[in-house]
Amino acid sequence: MKRRLRLGMVGGGQGAFIGAVHRLAARMDDHYELLAAALSADPANARSSALALGLDPARAYEDYAKMAQAEAARPDGIEVVAITTPNHLHAPVARAFLEAGIHVICDKPLALTLAEGEELARLARQQRRLFALTHTYSGYPMVRHARELVAAGALGELRYVQVEYLQDWLANPIPPGQNKQADWRADPARSGRAGCLGDIGTHAYQLAAFISGQLPSELAAELHSFVPGRLVDDHLQVWLRYPGGMRGSLNASQVASGEENRLQIRLYGDKASLIFRQEEPNQLWLTPIGGASQRLTRGRVDSLAARHASRVPAGHPEGYLEAFAQLYADIAELITARLERREPGEHARLVPMAREGVRGVRFIEAAVKSSAAEGAFTAI
Amino acid sequence: MKRRLRLGMVGGGQGAFIGAVHRLAARMDDHYELLAAALSADPANARSSALALGLDPARAYEDYAKMAQAEAARPDGIEVVAITTPNHLHAPVARAFLEAGIHVICDKPLALTLAEGEELARLARQQRRLFALTHTYSGYPMVRHARELVAAGALGELRYVQVEYLQDWLANPIPPGQNKQADWRADPARSGRAGCLGDIGTHAYQLAAFISGQLPSELAAELHSFVPGRLVDDHLQVWLRYPGGMRGSLNASQVASGEENRLQIRLYGDKASLIFRQEEPNQLWLTPIGGASQRLTRGRVDSLAARHASRVPAGHPEGYLEAFAQLYADIAELITARLERREPGEHARLVPMAREGVRGVRFIEAAVKSSAAEGAFTAI
Amino acid sequence: MKRRLRLGMVGGGQGAFIGAVHRLAARMDDHYELLAAALSADPANARSSALALGLDPARAYEDYAKMAQAEAARPDGIEVVAITTPNHLHAPVARAFLEAGIHVICDKPLALTLAEGEELARLARQQRRLFALTHTYSGYPMVRHARELVAAGALGELRYVQVEYLQDWLANPIPPGQNKQADWRADPARSGRAGCLGDIGTHAYQLAAFISGQLPSELAAELHSFVPGRLVDDHLQVWLRYPGGMRGSLNASQVASGEENRLQIRLYGDKASLIFRQEEPNQLWLTPIGGASQRLTRGRVDSLAARHASRVPAGHPEGYLEAFAQLYADIAELITARLERREPGEHARLVPMAREGVRGVRFIEAAVKSSAAEGAFTAI
Amino acid sequence: MKRRLRLGMVGGGQGAFIGAVHRLAARMDDHYELLAAALSADPANARSSALALGLDPARAYEDYAKMAQAEAARPDGIEVVAITTPNHLHAPVARAFLEAGIHVICDKPLALTLAEGEELARLARQQRRLFALTHTYSGYPMVRHARELVAAGALGELRYVQVEYLQDWLANPIPPGQNKQADWRADPARSGRAGCLGDIGTHAYQLAAFISGQLPSELAAELHSFVPGRLVDDHLQVWLRYPGGMRGSLNASQVASGEENRLQIRLYGDKASLIFRQEEPNQLWLTPIGGASQRLTRGRVDSLAARHASRVPAGHPEGYLEAFAQLYADIAELITARLERREPGEHARLVPMAREGVRGVRFIEAAVKSSAAEGAFTAI
Repeated sequence: MKRRLRLGMVGGGQGAFIGAVHRLAARMDDHYELLAAALSADPANARSSALALGLDPARAYEDYAKMAQAEAARPDGIEVVAITTPNHLHAPVARAFLEAGIHVICDKPLALTLAEGEELARLARQQRRLFALTHTYSGYPMVRHARELVAAGALGELRYVQVEYLQDWLANPIPPGQNKQADWRADPARSGRAGCLGDIGTHAYQLAAFISGQLPSELAAELHSFVPGRLVDDHLQVWLRYPGGMRGSLNASQVASGEENRLQIRLYGDKASLIFRQEEPNQLWLTPIGGASQRLTRGRVDSLAARHASRVPAGHPEGYLEAFAQLYADIAELITARLERREPGEHARLVPMAREGVRGVRFIEAAVKSSAAEGAFTAI
Repeated sequence: MKRRLRLGMVGGGQGAFIGAVHRLAARMDDHYELLAAALSADPANARSSALALGLDPARAYEDYAKMAQAEAARPDGIEVVAITTPNHLHAPVARAFLEAGIHVICDKPLALTLAEGEELARLARQQRRLFALTHTYSGYPMVRHARELVAAGALGELRYVQVEYLQDWLANPIPPGQNKQADWRADPARSGRAGCLGDIGTHAYQLAAFISGQLPSELAAELHSFVPGRLVDDHLQVWLRYPGGMRGSLNASQVASGEENRLQIRLYGDKASLIFRQEEPNQLWLTPIGGASQRLTRGRVDSLAARHASRVPAGHPEGYLEAFAQLYADIAELITARLERREPGEHARLVPMAREGVRGVRFIEAAVKSSAAEGAFTAI
Repeated sequence: MKRRLRLGMVGGGQGAFIGAVHRLAARMDDHYELLAAALSADPANARSSALALGLDPARAYEDYAKMAQAEAARPDGIEVVAITTPNHLHAPVARAFLEAGIHVICDKPLALTLAEGEELARLARQQRRLFALTHTYSGYPMVRHARELVAAGALGELRYVQVEYLQDWLANPIPPGQNKQADWRADPARSGRAGCLGDIGTHAYQLAAFISGQLPSELAAELHSFVPGRLVDDHLQVWLRYPGGMRGSLNASQVASGEENRLQIRLYGDKASLIFRQEEPNQLWLTPIGGASQRLTRGRVDSLAARHASRVPAGHPEGYLEAFAQLYADIAELITARLERREPGEHARLVPMAREGVRGVRFIEAAVKSSAAEGAFTAI
Repeated sequence: MKRRLRLGMVGGGQGAFIGAVHRLAARMDDHYELLAAALSADPANARSSALALGLDPARAYEDYAKMAQAEAARPDGIEVVAITTPNHLHAPVARAFLEAGIHVICDKPLALTLAEGEELARLARQQRRLFALTHTYSGYPMVRHARELVAAGALGELRYVQVEYLQDWLANPIPPGQNKQADWRADPARSGRAGCLGDIGTHAYQLAAFISGQLPSELAAELHSFVPGRLVDDHLQVWLRYPGGMRGSLNASQVASGEENRLQIRLYGDKASLIFRQEEPNQLWLTPIGGASQRLTRGRVDSLAARHASRVPAGHPEGYLEAFAQLYADIAELITARLERREPGEHARLVPMAREGVRGVRFIEAAVKSSAAEGAFTAI
């Protein structure tokens, strides 16, 4: 018999962007049923948004804290909550649901400070609840295939990783009140000290760690803000040094005119290189030293990871929403396996968890510190 | 309040491919609820497949005719049925549901013969029910944008359209019993006289008509079968002549080694040209005579059609499943507008209907006839 | 000691295009010295053009017939002549020089009629002189590598070849007197009955034969002229049937808006496919059935043919002029080997000769005939 | 009357690479005649190489110093010399010819030390002789067009420049004696302290300055050597800060597995961005904030700079050799204009001169210094 997980959501009311994406992702593979929500800090919006989604009015909450308590008390209460609020609420909302014994799926970043992040990770462990972080890009089949290739030694020993994440949507000043996403992201009180760094730099950092399987020991960073009056960084460059000798460079910008969502990673080993570009996610380029590039494609590569994360055959492009849905599918597998007291599928272990979130916050803190010290190398 | 349409399905049980895609597409934008099905001609498979989907066992039918009657009799019976069977069943199944007053969403081709197709179109009109055909590729935002550009005269007067659809999955003989899709497609009794022609040639034909807004008056065709023992064509080339002077060429192959799902259309007008490649569906190339190519992208083009059919911003790739879902969303809009006695949104009128299906069957018949006459030009 | 061949030229005076390209190509690898010329049918242009090139005024001829006689009579007379006139002069000029015992390098097409072409081929054989035809595209290293791959069976048995050659420079009517190249090409008296067909269709035809190693036995053709008032075709599509079962399609257009010089060939075998695009000539795509595409690059492929025809390492793009120069270099090798009574290098045998030219004229005649018969299949 | 400049050459004998490229480049547009040379430090190689080139034995020198004196003394002596030796000889050879009153065309880098470089620049000015540096990439038409676009404000105010130059030919250790180029480049005595930095990093630096029209005031650099036993850097990353607020990043590597000669520059302004990739040199991408990318192509862009530097129409690819030849053509124009006491063509002023060479050496010194100081920002 088909079993769908009972899902709740905090944030994601009308006017928000990522909440709708979470709902679509949860729906795509049919592992969840959205049953309860506190969709907005604004009660009226919370109610009307819930109504528009067809939720039971009794489970359309105006307050996340009440929602956590009420749902925990119901026999048919939600089993997992998706947190899609602005950054500064991730930690308090997550804490409320973890304390209520409910699994958490949370947008990155985990938290605004390292202390807060570590405490959440600790709490999740203590409560024996999942704390999954939606680093969407790790849901792409070809990203997972890249990870497998690296782990299998297809590149030889890694020497250099270059990751960049370039957008242009903040290239011009955006007057307050015009774009909800831009508003809170530009407000240090709601998004944290890091602007571009926290918003997309952390995705780039997570992707590099996910594929390379390595974490740097120190970094040098230069944060910059090009748009006058902006209180957080909108552009950054980082150098990374890894314990085993690998070097890295990470660039992110939200003022890179003409770029849509250019997340790209290149890994160079002493045998071959690998290139993945998020904007062409159905392929991966593998090139040996001195040899011909191979264009590996989703649906034609021979890897369990890639095949598991695919829905349609080669040549039928999948995209961002499928990658997002993959995280939801894998999280469902993790939760269901616990309920069924069995080992989850191998692939499901690829979902980023609180531990990765703590690393992301640590990266942010080190980069901010290095930049303040004129790019001096700083332990991470 | 959220209202979901009550959906049924015929075909698409375990081992089938396209049925699962229909279900995912129906789910994506949350306009449907799957409530009843006859998922297989094999009763055991029909039952177990329905169970695996969590359907009410009372509505897991073993026979599509009974399903049509039973559902029509229920007050909460399905409002629309998706037909995802092999080709030879499209017509009888569709007839049963139309006669029961249920809207139909059907895989192409509409029918195996022109007479059958025309009768279905007539029946749908008579019953005042929708008969939507899932020519998926017309659900892509950039295909719709292309159509708008052509209609707005951005290319000038069209001179030449070149469409090709190349795959390699039938490049080698496939032993019977190994691939369910290959089996019935290679069997004239179940797929019709046309192999590659019916399977993908009709998609190419529909795409050319959809974007150009024109229908040819005659064609010359050469059908061929490269793989020994194959009873239907696996390769074809067609020339098209249009009433207004436009010329066309259409190539399709399922033995094009190395090609995954290369559906590509190029339109040349007396001002500019337009290129769309299904394998890179988030972009479109527009090039004036003597000038620079523009890469138009989903999320950045200024067209209602494209924006309506998008879910995520530019740079977040959408793909085949989103295009499929778009058809389902538009069909939902058409049905809902009828229920609500209002005009449907403009975009929803883009869904291919029985009329397009009849044209596809007519194309198949003309091509078969021309090929038998050594490629003589034949009226269409 | 370095030995340069003594070169003459007919055509290519000021205002002409291809003559300068021939001279540059002859100069590039330093195997020739241009010593005599009849650069224009206009005596004043012939003289001033020769002067501008620094030629000895005594060898700046006003008339190609006198030039052939005078040069043949000099002990230091030219050894080879390059013919770069409009098409209708190819045959008479070539005849004059062959009869004078001088090797010929000639632009395609060989001649305006098959009879004329065959007579030239016969004359060259009889005089034991080279008659080389500058089908430039066969000078590209990656075209030669493609030929080697096909010959070595890398594609398996060939099934389908698709070649297209699209330009837009004649998409609009060009008023007479404005563009010298357009003028004579649009004039059947000077360019022959075939417009686009002779100008670029023959290049496409030669390329298909060169790489595939096969010649068709019959064709069906549709020639068309889109621009009002144009006396020759500006657009065409051709189907090809080969003795061994291979099928082909060839499209050429000079009204393909937005296209610059899109010569592309795709060959599909029962093992793999190969794609070459002239506009990206340093690479070649090889893709097995169901597998990953390989991007083979000049400078990194392991073939004598490709390495012989390269001047700079991988990643340093070579282009059209190098391909042209390669023909000149290979012709120099053929002539020098004769002078030195030795076998020429293997690669030099790849230069297209009168025989290929005769085939090109035969292709033109068959296509014109088929088109007049509404695209009926016609022996070639 | 045609006038060719009398050219001499030092370095570039048999076994060398770049000398042959210089000769081909000088020949391509027919502005030079090679008349004298000291092709190798090895007298036998010098003689046999000169013979193979067909030089007058009397002008085949064994020693560059004697050559400078002898040629200066001849009435028909060379007017300009091309220096294509390993790096450590650039300065002494250039000095000898400048002192003899002969113009100099020299490979980069100008010199091994800043003092040496500045002295050469001073000497050239004092002797009123040209000192041209073959930064080949500035000869590309689309690089020049990029420069014009930036200067014309097409990008708005520049914010960020990212330039990278990646190769893999030194990814593995190369045993001494196997590759002449690798040998001297890996030897600090012959190539200077900078390996990859001097060899290709300086090309990247020059390209950024050439297109952006800006010079940085400080940099931070990290040089690294991945291959065990290598005495010079084979990989580097640099951050650049410009007086006007622009930021830059420069990466270069000769161990980037799979990369051939990936020189790429991206410039982001507050209106639009521009991308040029050396491996696809016939095009340039221009993208406004939030808009569609335009693919600008050689032969179709409307700029004097690009048209001047083109030989064949759009769609007929030009490459590295044409870019190299363009520098030679422009240098010929500069010298000829002096001889004819007229202003040279505007385009010819684009040739990099000793001043650019001094900047390159200054860049090297600052990068070495910063790297030694753990990447501290250093004035340049």
